[in-house]
Amino acid sequence: MILHDFLPSGNGYKIRLLCACLGLKVTLKQYDITKGETHTESFLAMNPNGKIPVLQLDDGQCLSESNAIILYLAEQYKSALLPTDAILRAKVYKWLFWEQYSHEPNIASPRFWLTHNAMTDLKKQMLPDRIQQGHAALKQMEETLAKQTFLVGDSITLADICLFPYTHVAEEGGAYQLTEHPNIQRWIKDIEALDWFIPITQD
Amino acid sequence: MILHDFLPSGNGYKIRLLCACLGLKVTLKQYDITKGETHTESFLAMNPNGKIPVLQLDDGQCLSESNAIILYLAEQYKSALLPTDAILRAKVYKWLFWEQYSHEPNIASPRFWLTHNAMTDLKKQMLPDRIQQGHAALKQMEETLAKQTFLVGDSITLADICLFPYTHVAEEGGAYQLTEHPNIQRWIKDIEALDWFIPITQD
Repeated sequence: MILHDFLPSGNGYKIRLLCACLGLKVTLKQYDITKGETHTESFLAMNPNGKIPVLQLDDGQCLSESNAIILYLAEQYKSALLPTDAILRAKVYKWLFWEQYSHEPNIASPRFWLTHNAMTDLKKQMLPDRIQQGHAALKQMEETLAKQTFLVGDSITLADICLFPYTHVAEEGGAYQLTEHPNIQRWIKDIEALDWFIPITQD
Repeated sequence: MILHDFLPSGNGYKIRLLCACLGLKVTLKQYDITKGETHTESFLAMNPNGKIPVLQLDDGQCLSESNAIILYLAEQYKSALLPTDAILRAKVYKWLFWEQYSHEPNIASPRFWLTHNAMTDLKKQMLPDRIQQGHAALKQMEETLAKQTFLVGDSITLADICLFPYTHVAEEGGAYQLTEHPNIQRWIKDIEALDWFIPITQD
């Protein structure tokens, strides 16, 4: 399998982290998203949305949307990260969709704007509202992690694989302070201590 | 089951539409989201994110995030709307996450701002970029639906249930014209012609 990716991307890192957990080898093909490398004709043929990550299977088929890819891989490899219990699965799904709507745009996007020289006047004006919503998102994670070890109970699931990448680098860019969220900090350390853990910039 | 919902919501409508397809009876409990009715203590106990829809199961457990709920229901009732084939499932997942990140914020949010008197100066400035991205989202649907009957092939899936609600009312508010997208218009008519179809304002 080939993972079409950009190393600093938390969306790509979800897949790299899951592959590390599952012991799967993928070939990494890197694109610089700041230089439009995902808007070429050949890239758009793999993903008309023009975004990494794309997982290219051995038969050439291409899957897109990071959370769709981790669901696919967890099902394919029958990983316990995707529980068989229907309610627990629904809770995993909840966090995955919540991440895309309520977490990523408020935590990952400001990090990208602030660390990749991508700030514009409009984004500057949008920033306070995004940061307010990002604080609300971190508060929901903090309150959950104050009651249990991981996001869907006391075992790690895809929800943690999905939320770890952008949360653990939330401070980059300066919009967030994780010291305000001791249980998120504890959870980050717990994940970093797992024997299959790999850092964001390692392929 | 009780569906905590707001009738004009496309997110709630996804679940109402799926329940109609599955022949499931749910009791509807309505909240006016424009009056803060989802931010009460009792509502936040069901969903700390303070958003409809919430599906309350018969044992009292509450599920949130519309796309997580439709995945749960489709699995629970073994609906063919969620294919068993791994690649087709991954494609359904792709559209569900894409809807939350690339479609809903650009098509549903401007509709809400324009039709519910929710426009602010900042939102006015954000609107051109949202509309540009909304046009790109509709273009991706149009190109897919030019090649096949439904979003994941020639059979209806959860991807169509998920994308129909906000797409079929995209023109409300005046930001989009569906006449530019004949295959989306054809797809809307195909779904509206299904014998279990119910309109957005019917519980």
